Amino acid sequence: MDIMDQFKPIIYRDKKIYFLDQTLLPEEVVFLEIDSIKTCFDAIKELKVRGAPAIGIAAAYGYLLSSKLARKSSKEAFLEDIIKDKEYLASSRPTAVNLFWALDRMDKVLNKNKHKDFKDIINILENEAILIQKEEEDVCRKIGNHGLEILKDNYTVLTHCNAGFLATSKYGTALAPIYRAKEEGLNIKVFADETRPLLQGSRLTAFELDKMGIDVTVITDSMAAVVMKEGLIDVIIVGCDRAAINGDIANKIGTYNLAVLADFHKIPFYVAVPKSTFDLSLESGDMIPIEERGKEEICFGFGKRTCPSNIEVYNPAFDVTPNKLITGIITEDGILRAPFEKSIKEIFKV
Amino acid sequence: MDIMDQFKPIIYRDKKIYFLDQTLLPEEVVFLEIDSIKTCFDAIKELKVRGAPAIGIAAAYGYLLSSKLARKSSKEAFLEDIIKDKEYLASSRPTAVNLFWALDRMDKVLNKNKHKDFKDIINILENEAILIQKEEEDVCRKIGNHGLEILKDNYTVLTHCNAGFLATSKYGTALAPIYRAKEEGLNIKVFADETRPLLQGSRLTAFELDKMGIDVTVITDSMAAVVMKEGLIDVIIVGCDRAAINGDIANKIGTYNLAVLADFHKIPFYVAVPKSTFDLSLESGDMIPIEERGKEEICFGFGKRTCPSNIEVYNPAFDVTPNKLITGIITEDGILRAPFEKSIKEIFKV
Repeated sequence: MDIMDQFKPIIYRDKKIYFLDQTLLPEEVVFLEIDSIKTCFDAIKELKVRGAPAIGIAAAYGYLLSSKLARKSSKEAFLEDIIKDKEYLASSRPTAVNLFWALDRMDKVLNKNKHKDFKDIINILENEAILIQKEEEDVCRKIGNHGLEILKDNYTVLTHCNAGFLATSKYGTALAPIYRAKEEGLNIKVFADETRPLLQGSRLTAFELDKMGIDVTVITDSMAAVVMKEGLIDVIIVGCDRAAINGDIANKIGTYNLAVLADFHKIPFYVAVPKSTFDLSLESGDMIPIEERGKEEICFGFGKRTCPSNIEVYNPAFDVTPNKLITGIITEDGILRAPFEKSIKEIFKV
Repeated sequence: MDIMDQFKPIIYRDKKIYFLDQTLLPEEVVFLEIDSIKTCFDAIKELKVRGAPAIGIAAAYGYLLSSKLARKSSKEAFLEDIIKDKEYLASSRPTAVNLFWALDRMDKVLNKNKHKDFKDIINILENEAILIQKEEEDVCRKIGNHGLEILKDNYTVLTHCNAGFLATSKYGTALAPIYRAKEEGLNIKVFADETRPLLQGSRLTAFELDKMGIDVTVITDSMAAVVMKEGLIDVIIVGCDRAAINGDIANKIGTYNLAVLADFHKIPFYVAVPKSTFDLSLESGDMIPIEERGKEEICFGFGKRTCPSNIEVYNPAFDVTPNKLITGIITEDGILRAPFEKSIKEIFKV
């Protein structure tokens, strides 16, 4: 089995749903069976499954699971249970739009087919969840193909957090161009920000790049400025949790920092964004809700208290990078350039 | 006893030397007795005592200890042992210039008095080490006084790493203006970067500011950009490990990142630098040797593996901020402004 399939974040096999528990990586590889809506909710909330596209896929399977577990005493009871579960799942994390996008897509399919037998409905929802996962894989491969145009042999890419296959279905978003470049025989080196507080860079990005045989060096987030100043970075590529229609993007905390540094050091700054991550209802990034997480992630992250317990902590999980700091947005339809409002509207034909 | 005296990083009492083990803070307050040159070397190397001025003070007491432990069979043997110990202590950490400055100062005193009795020499060296510690306290208080002019009531200061009393003798360098402002009745709030990899910001700066009753909020290093963008920061003050004659400064990794962010967000960026931290032999910051530390600090920092063990890691402990990004350098002689080459030469009368 190829590496990307071996570490798929969400696996649907023999009618059962499994999430790779990413909080245990890189030390342990454990697949959790998702057999209740609460398990699904907790896995998303606690970042056992994370990354905007993977959260969308996880939610689609959660919706499917809801339809299997819902009361079958009447169609009303059945629909009522699913609506309740959908709202519950939607409340797990506020920033990544793929969560709502996937739940709404499943909802539409249900509504179109709600007159059918329970068994048929469940089959249809099952096909839809599988399709969402399959489509995300195709989207990521296309992002990788388009991203090839910004890479050259022996380039070094800086990335933040994890927007690789662990965050999607396969290939990833920000890492897709790197994997496609490797498939094309290019030699690409990567610097990975460790990405405090939850270290998705050192725990996940380093893990998956290493498994894929790509040369990766981990740095703390505060070292990105130095490696840029030292001329070690040719291009920066990051992922995205929600993009507004003007091209402002919300991504893991620290992304805006990198964008400012890239601007100062005149290094191209690209964001990989599947179309499912755009929120066309938002005119600008200021409107994107930013999840604030608990202080223990910063004060007591790795089994040891690293901050006096009574101290105030500010822990926004995401930040917003304004479009003016972005060189290009890599989508499955091609690389968008400024003015982004125009180029984004073009791919969505709005 | 006042708080700053209670947590003095180096205490000399009843002819014995004690270092506060800062690697155990904030969880445990343990004073280590320094009874051999190796204990002293290890404490500096392992950052049990850290911060440029405190390293200088620690080295001065280490030199004193060497004179006490050295062979007394002949003056030659005595001097030979001290020279050997001095070279050993000087090799503990390469970047902070105060280490070499303090050892050289002790050396000069020894050379001037080497014809005297062993007992007299040791007394003279003891007085010199105590004087160095006392002088650093005076210097820090003066830095605090000069720094008052950049603070106003209800200002919020962002700082990085720890340049407070734990890094000096009393008051600190970067934190001295804040402590002096509090003594003057001003209300100052602080944001402290946690400062990966060793978390001197969350472990030490948050600890000491809290003990002193100052409102402090801890953020990860990558959040500094966001709090600046949100307009929460009025001024940035950091410490320094070595300054060149042109005003370039080496300080804890992440300082350069902050300086770039400050430039972008038009926030004043100050560096607190005792004159003992200038290295007048260096024309620019490019010549400052930067210590690279082990990968385990990043991969295995808090009792848990957070990065696959075979991954490459880059771990420079310091970075260099060019003078053009610095608003002012706060010294015991006043705040220096650009052109720094001129203002620095003025205070040193060179």
